[in-house]
Amino acid sequence: MNLYDIKGPADIRGLSLSQLNALAADIRDFLVESIAKTGGHLSSNLGVVELTIALHYVFDSPRDKLIFDVGHQSYVHKLLTGRLPQFSTLRQYKGLSGFQKRKESVHDVWEAGHSSTSLSAALGMAIARDLRDEDYRVVPIIGDGALSSGMAMEALNQIGSEQRNMVIIFNDNNMSISKNVGALDTAFTKLRTSKPYNTFKSDLSDVLSQSKAGNNLLQGMRNIKNTVKESVVDTSIFGNFNLEYIGPVDGHDLKMLVKVLRIAKKHNGPIVVHVITKKGKGYSYAEEDASGVWHGVSHFDPNTGKVLSKMPPHHASWSEILSESLIQLAKQDGRIVALTPAMISGSKLNDFFHQFPKRSFDCGIAEEHTVTLAASLALSGMRPFVSIYSSFMQRAYDQIQQDVARMDLPVVFGIDRCGLVGEDGETHHGVFDIAMLRSIPNLILSQPKDALEAQQLLKTAFAQAHPFAIRYPRGNVEFHPEPDAKELPIGSWTRKQTGEYPIGTIITYGSDVDKVIAKAQANNISIHVVNARFFKPMDESMLQQLAKEGLPIIVYETDMRMGGLSSAILEYYNDHQLSVSIKRIGLGDHFIEHGSMPQLRKAEGIDINTLFQEIGAIHSEIR
Amino acid sequence: MNLYDIKGPADIRGLSLSQLNALAADIRDFLVESIAKTGGHLSSNLGVVELTIALHYVFDSPRDKLIFDVGHQSYVHKLLTGRLPQFSTLRQYKGLSGFQKRKESVHDVWEAGHSSTSLSAALGMAIARDLRDEDYRVVPIIGDGALSSGMAMEALNQIGSEQRNMVIIFNDNNMSISKNVGALDTAFTKLRTSKPYNTFKSDLSDVLSQSKAGNNLLQGMRNIKNTVKESVVDTSIFGNFNLEYIGPVDGHDLKMLVKVLRIAKKHNGPIVVHVITKKGKGYSYAEEDASGVWHGVSHFDPNTGKVLSKMPPHHASWSEILSESLIQLAKQDGRIVALTPAMISGSKLNDFFHQFPKRSFDCGIAEEHTVTLAASLALSGMRPFVSIYSSFMQRAYDQIQQDVARMDLPVVFGIDRCGLVGEDGETHHGVFDIAMLRSIPNLILSQPKDALEAQQLLKTAFAQAHPFAIRYPRGNVEFHPEPDAKELPIGSWTRKQTGEYPIGTIITYGSDVDKVIAKAQANNISIHVVNARFFKPMDESMLQQLAKEGLPIIVYETDMRMGGLSSAILEYYNDHQLSVSIKRIGLGDHFIEHGSMPQLRKAEGIDINTLFQEIGAIHSEIR
Repeated sequence: MNLYDIKGPADIRGLSLSQLNALAADIRDFLVESIAKTGGHLSSNLGVVELTIALHYVFDSPRDKLIFDVGHQSYVHKLLTGRLPQFSTLRQYKGLSGFQKRKESVHDVWEAGHSSTSLSAALGMAIARDLRDEDYRVVPIIGDGALSSGMAMEALNQIGSEQRNMVIIFNDNNMSISKNVGALDTAFTKLRTSKPYNTFKSDLSDVLSQSKAGNNLLQGMRNIKNTVKESVVDTSIFGNFNLEYIGPVDGHDLKMLVKVLRIAKKHNGPIVVHVITKKGKGYSYAEEDASGVWHGVSHFDPNTGKVLSKMPPHHASWSEILSESLIQLAKQDGRIVALTPAMISGSKLNDFFHQFPKRSFDCGIAEEHTVTLAASLALSGMRPFVSIYSSFMQRAYDQIQQDVARMDLPVVFGIDRCGLVGEDGETHHGVFDIAMLRSIPNLILSQPKDALEAQQLLKTAFAQAHPFAIRYPRGNVEFHPEPDAKELPIGSWTRKQTGEYPIGTIITYGSDVDKVIAKAQANNISIHVVNARFFKPMDESMLQQLAKEGLPIIVYETDMRMGGLSSAILEYYNDHQLSVSIKRIGLGDHFIEHGSMPQLRKAEGIDINTLFQEIGAIHSEIR
Repeated sequence: MNLYDIKGPADIRGLSLSQLNALAADIRDFLVESIAKTGGHLSSNLGVVELTIALHYVFDSPRDKLIFDVGHQSYVHKLLTGRLPQFSTLRQYKGLSGFQKRKESVHDVWEAGHSSTSLSAALGMAIARDLRDEDYRVVPIIGDGALSSGMAMEALNQIGSEQRNMVIIFNDNNMSISKNVGALDTAFTKLRTSKPYNTFKSDLSDVLSQSKAGNNLLQGMRNIKNTVKESVVDTSIFGNFNLEYIGPVDGHDLKMLVKVLRIAKKHNGPIVVHVITKKGKGYSYAEEDASGVWHGVSHFDPNTGKVLSKMPPHHASWSEILSESLIQLAKQDGRIVALTPAMISGSKLNDFFHQFPKRSFDCGIAEEHTVTLAASLALSGMRPFVSIYSSFMQRAYDQIQQDVARMDLPVVFGIDRCGLVGEDGETHHGVFDIAMLRSIPNLILSQPKDALEAQQLLKTAFAQAHPFAIRYPRGNVEFHPEPDAKELPIGSWTRKQTGEYPIGTIITYGSDVDKVIAKAQANNISIHVVNARFFKPMDESMLQQLAKEGLPIIVYETDMRMGGLSSAILEYYNDHQLSVSIKRIGLGDHFIEHGSMPQLRKAEGIDINTLFQEIGAIHSEIR
């Protein structure tokens, strides 16, 4: 069957096994070709081709609810549910999302971008189904990394207790983004290496024929259970959560997958189907990837596996700049340790982990624990650096506030991927952290305008004794390592005047500082440009000085306007009874879709052109 | 030995077993007498008397680190570490905290008030110890309820992987605050009901003598392990986390406790000591409590167990008002379900759970999962009410934002214990939620001024289709059920003028609204008092009107000033280019200690007298 003829899941249900296998091969080719052009999550989707086909073959979506945890491995699901024609728009502005999105399709019944929500979602749907006396299957698909996160285990605890019908697909590829860590992985390995399910399929077919006889179903399932229990080494990790277990099953064996899913579908109560998949399956470059570089990719050449985007000379990503600088500091200060919640590769901590293995901690997808662990390390004389994406840091709000800030402990946070992140979209934009963190006492919050200032801020952070957060975005900037980077006075801003007789003051932060200066100079516009590199504490003497000068101020923010830097400035001027004209530019009170950075900035009215229109308006007023 | 003679843990190490048992009895008497006067956490502390004695007998605090999870069960620890003379100041302003506090004693090495941080804390201390080449024991003491929370399991996952020396005391009383829920509790019960540890003590003493022979220690421990494994039904819940297990041990048998703790102390790697304790042990009223009313108590008569504080007639706690109103709504709307993260009793949901057992969900100490479960229920056609303490809600910031608000789902949040909470102090004040939630799109945030408005807001919440939060504090107010409570226009404020020719406008919320009105009237002060019952959206037409009237405004807040309501008002006036004189009263940028509400309000400058001084200042200016 031609891939392009599939309008929905019903179209694959009449296919033979060999046709399904051919379909799987076509999908793989399509994914590699397509993602090579658009970028996206490649490895995880190549790993679930057969699994997704089998799920749609056995279950009846959208009546049955397929919930892909995180959702970045739902590309095959998108292709099988009629979205192939739009697939070239993946992750592009107004195009298909890289995650499940309800507005895209009735087959997308849940949305996520953060890990480990699928089990809670599944339980909610199962409860609602039972209360409303409806009849459908709920099928969360969750990976081994996501399963070891706290909220997944909280959900398992209640799922095992509620005992509602649910088929939990344990998509076990032995890595979430990069190699998994933690004791549970050992427990999973026990299961992985146990006798595979297909060696006793003859027993199963007996049970299946029994199952057909209505009343005997439950007993049939009990027999299966006993068969399973006897056939695998240890089912206890799921058994302890009071969950039935079936597996392990080869996730690339369509025949076996269909067979086992059919058994699970008939089961009463929650059952875990353990499916072993291989990330990157069928594409050698991705198959051989152990560090996670093929997890999320940008444009690449499908034939050579070479990434096509080029880094300009002397440039590095912000993550690299911080990690590289951290290494330099750690060489001189043995107290410095690095922690990451499962983002070694994304946070560019590979070198640090390599150079300081004893001082490096991958805590798993466990933001809450990671932050409290850092608090305790700080309290015990170490100097922890927690590298964490802004959006995922939201998971640890309470721990940052209660365990780090309340005890006023010197944890240094590297808040990566702050601001708009572009193509990952709605769930990944790191635009809330200023508003979220600003009201937390004791915490210092900063953002460098360039690589030098990043190094200075990091040095400053480790030279003082309070919680200190440095936020930095995606993307690359010019980078020259500066071993003698000086500490910065905490709370100090800087400013630059672009010409004589300035007409106003722009307060901004991050790499926009220099961009605004450059554009003003290029256009012969005379303004002050303030680098508000500390959100908290702010530079009060500069704020006083600006009020005295009396020029109109534009606060140009690239994060949520509500509760952000401009809000802090309004508070300051109000409380000091200073009257200043302030125009606020920033993100409005809504969630923001995916798209390229320039597109999103323009659509949200936070691009530099919009800023200069405002500056132009000041200019006209003055004239 | 006289309890009053104990200056520190060293004083009990010379005591005989019978002396230790006598000490335990003295401590119990002291706790009942003392807490009857001060209020506090009674049951959990009565349950750990022998355990705490044994811990201080075997371990060498403060060199060895005892970390009480949450910390409300650290009273016995306080008594044994020289704080008996101050114990009558417990939970009082400037007195002893009801939790562990580092500034109180060198024996308090960690602070918490939120559940399940002790394991992360213990791992941090163990890592720091090993990196710094120090030598001490780390001993987290964690209950069965706290152990099933997500971040505790995240920590166990890494503890099992790191394999650092640590003695984890599993304080198993089969209830955290009230009866435990969840599948894990079944797993714990397997252990509880297994062959108790003391039936094979003869084997142990053999092993112990072996252990003394240095090199044989590890092998000795392995023997113990095998002995244990053979003697109990199932050790797999801890075994799956790659943790050694010893137990169960009777937590009121001092001799056995000391013996087992000594074994555990010598163990290499992390080991779980399973101690079965009885909450309320030795005080019959508390022992018989199954619903958790003796978890935290106010003043009571120790002889009768009668609570001494009296509720005025026709009064009820805010929790009761909301829960009672929810029952009335749920009778008419079968879609309404109630969820709580282990706070049935504290949130006064007992009646709801009794009347609607199928629509009631105690999700365990699992705020993250609870909120996402609610999102899924809302998405599936139900109308969930999540009752959650403001301070604990912080654990679910990300789920509120990503799963509820981003999908714009009609979850109703009852944010209990908002504002200052008094004696529970620093970790429990619910003063951050306005600043925390305000920048989240789609979310409606409100607070009623009285019981009638509470009923109206709840009705409003269920009559609309967006995330809707109603916050309410501790304490009691007059309550008359109003079956015909009308919906309120979302975002609408009200105001009252207390006399002719008003001199200013007070914008406030909650029960302060009527208090301010009453005081103004009593003192013949003419002002406008605005009831800002919606923090978001705000009443923009009233804000416009107030600007037009041009009177000075005082925003009187009882929560964090930074990022709160007054900040929202400043943003509004600035962005609409309206010039208004605004004075902001609210909590400053620091964490707030424990004490009575009036004391804390006065100390923080947010009492009504301070407000009226400000009003007086306006008056003087006008004259």
